[in-house]
Amino acid sequence: MNVVDTIIKKRDGKELTAAEINDFIRGYTDGRIPDYQASAFLMAVLCRGMTDRETADLTMAIAHSGEIISLTGIVDTAVDKHSTGGVGDKTTLIVQPIVTACGVPVAKMSGRGLGFSGGTIDKLESVPNIKLDLSKEAFLAQLKRYHTVLSGQSADLAPADGMLYALRDVTGTVPALPLIASSIMSKKIAAGTQTILLDVKVGVGAFMDTIEKARHLAEVMVAIGDHVGRKVYAELTDMNQPLGSAVGNILEVKEVIAFLKGEPVPADIYEHCVESSAILLEMAGAAKDRNDAENQVKKALASGAAFESLKKLVEVQGGDSAYLDHPEKFPRAPIVREVLADRGGYVHEINARTVGETSVSLDAGRVKKSDSIDHRVGILVHQKVGDFVEKGAPLFTIHANSEEKFNRAVTNLLSAVRIEAEKCEPLPQFYGLVTGANEKA
Amino acid sequence: MNVVDTIIKKRDGKELTAAEINDFIRGYTDGRIPDYQASAFLMAVLCRGMTDRETADLTMAIAHSGEIISLTGIVDTAVDKHSTGGVGDKTTLIVQPIVTACGVPVAKMSGRGLGFSGGTIDKLESVPNIKLDLSKEAFLAQLKRYHTVLSGQSADLAPADGMLYALRDVTGTVPALPLIASSIMSKKIAAGTQTILLDVKVGVGAFMDTIEKARHLAEVMVAIGDHVGRKVYAELTDMNQPLGSAVGNILEVKEVIAFLKGEPVPADIYEHCVESSAILLEMAGAAKDRNDAENQVKKALASGAAFESLKKLVEVQGGDSAYLDHPEKFPRAPIVREVLADRGGYVHEINARTVGETSVSLDAGRVKKSDSIDHRVGILVHQKVGDFVEKGAPLFTIHANSEEKFNRAVTNLLSAVRIEAEKCEPLPQFYGLVTGANEKA
Repeated sequence: MNVVDTIIKKRDGKELTAAEINDFIRGYTDGRIPDYQASAFLMAVLCRGMTDRETADLTMAIAHSGEIISLTGIVDTAVDKHSTGGVGDKTTLIVQPIVTACGVPVAKMSGRGLGFSGGTIDKLESVPNIKLDLSKEAFLAQLKRYHTVLSGQSADLAPADGMLYALRDVTGTVPALPLIASSIMSKKIAAGTQTILLDVKVGVGAFMDTIEKARHLAEVMVAIGDHVGRKVYAELTDMNQPLGSAVGNILEVKEVIAFLKGEPVPADIYEHCVESSAILLEMAGAAKDRNDAENQVKKALASGAAFESLKKLVEVQGGDSAYLDHPEKFPRAPIVREVLADRGGYVHEINARTVGETSVSLDAGRVKKSDSIDHRVGILVHQKVGDFVEKGAPLFTIHANSEEKFNRAVTNLLSAVRIEAEKCEPLPQFYGLVTGANEKA
Repeated sequence: MNVVDTIIKKRDGKELTAAEINDFIRGYTDGRIPDYQASAFLMAVLCRGMTDRETADLTMAIAHSGEIISLTGIVDTAVDKHSTGGVGDKTTLIVQPIVTACGVPVAKMSGRGLGFSGGTIDKLESVPNIKLDLSKEAFLAQLKRYHTVLSGQSADLAPADGMLYALRDVTGTVPALPLIASSIMSKKIAAGTQTILLDVKVGVGAFMDTIEKARHLAEVMVAIGDHVGRKVYAELTDMNQPLGSAVGNILEVKEVIAFLKGEPVPADIYEHCVESSAILLEMAGAAKDRNDAENQVKKALASGAAFESLKKLVEVQGGDSAYLDHPEKFPRAPIVREVLADRGGYVHEINARTVGETSVSLDAGRVKKSDSIDHRVGILVHQKVGDFVEKGAPLFTIHANSEEKFNRAVTNLLSAVRIEAEKCEPLPQFYGLVTGANEKA
């Protein structure tokens, strides 16, 4: 098969066969197809789209570019939860211990942050000595023994995805729906879990800025799951404003600890994590219905079992769990100062993207993969859309490592907030749940 | 300026500034922008298009990637004729001596053939000893002294075009209108002539398969000319069937000689060359009107002045003009055999692309740039669409260098012809003349 013919076929908006897609991915992974042909192909996919069948074939081709892990003989069932990326999204660190505490094993491979979204691995690395680059053998052994494991993505899984992502990043081909869906699903499929809850973020702080686009992405990914015999649900959740209060690595881990200890947290993160945990229990067949699942979740929180599960995860992976019992042990940024409202009124907007970008500029995240991060820095967001604030009330607390970055952050954060005299409705947390290719709840 | 931002802007269908286009072309020519970013950009241009203004800016950026030749002090005016490429298109070798014989200097830079279209340089190289790779100095000196010169494209002219073309060829981005227009016009502008007649071919044997697309390409190129102060007209001419009779290098040169000596030639090539020559004389201000121009052309043919002008061109460039006086001196292919009609009726189709591809398979042209060609081989086409043929009458004469290639050519050529019982109108030769961005004749 001639690669130029494949590019031309897609350029002309025609549907590729599974063989054409497989040949393309294999050729690119082998180095027979050069970057300049791959990037032309990716741009053609972005401009012309792919059918759901093509996207499923692309996903499987990428998954099969490396090893596919099997959980047979390890646990009967294991679940995974994956977010498309957001600002202040520390839900994995809350949902994983809740679900494990309710008796359902969780096998989670996660990523690092890039751009304005944070990454779970970066966040949990705030805990001293924790080991998050487990070998496949260690990953499976821990899952078998402790029913909970969290590790960075193994380089052996779906290697084509890493190559394609690096190329997309420098060729303007990141936001193509078939490429986003196949990138996410190829890794999930290669990682072996049979039951996957996807959290597709919608809003200014997400890849998908409209509910329509997010729902389409969700449907495509759920359809891929159906196609390959995995149980995949996708929830559509808000990412117009940051989730919860904390944005930044140590700050977010502290919010996780507070949540699991039953201390007060913003309603959006509470609702999000309880609901997501309950859906996972239902999907795994560990609850009679959603109501039963929610009761189990609340019990695991109230009893402290969920918090103990997080401590166990940290300890098993070599981390110092004393930091979880005494979060005041975490190092603190040298500059911690509030940003106050310069007028009173109702909060109409707290732009999640601007808050995320500001946290990156404080060194909480990366612009390039090779950038190093400062785990101490970040932002606490004290208001939610719909809240009434008095002039002079605190909007944010900035944790910064230099005056210069603090000052820049103040300006940026004030530009992220819009306060008006008119009342404003709170933002919903959920926009829907996709549980089958044509089934929406 | 960030190259990824430029790619994204075009991907999203937005109009690029001249500075963005210049930076892109300069960066690619310098090697700062890698092939994989350039190919993504080219695919975005193909999918999203460019405005006429962007295309003009792209053309000038490519033209300025190398030297721009000036004809000031060489001749008062010089004309150039450029065809977008066809099958049996030997018109440059006929029009150039006619126009020169009528007193208008012709400065022609031409290309080699690739794929099913032939190239003027390959054809004229049939004449022993002729030198067609003139230096810029030799090109200008000959133009000044003899008012006629024909050479291969200098590598110093518009080097970005060569780089971009090589990349387009392997990334499925050849047939993008702004890229075709800028490729042609950048070389014409760099070559220095002020007066250019473009021959935009339309039909199955051309890049542009509909009159609509061909007219759009013509209008874009004429507009580029307006934009940069060159006088550019574009004629739209038929390329559904081969032009004239001969397809193949020596065979075509022999048809050129026959034409200029006043021997009988097919009506389509006669009409095409007389009309194109007359338009050039009018454009150069050397004729009162089209009628006067046509009379001058016919006089130059009847007097033998046009044939003498071709002989002079060949001699000045070192070629053996005895071959022009005695075309029987040209070597002949070992196999020369006719292909006969397997049924009688009216000719409805002689597919120019199939005939062109068959000539390539006989070794008259190249699949890859590095292929060598056999100047002796090719095809004589004895019928035109609309002709009535008896069963058993000759349709083609194949000149081949092996039995195997001959046999394959017979099968291919028979598949190129469609003969039906119903009458059929001849194909027109001209579909229009574009003389200004919004002016069509």
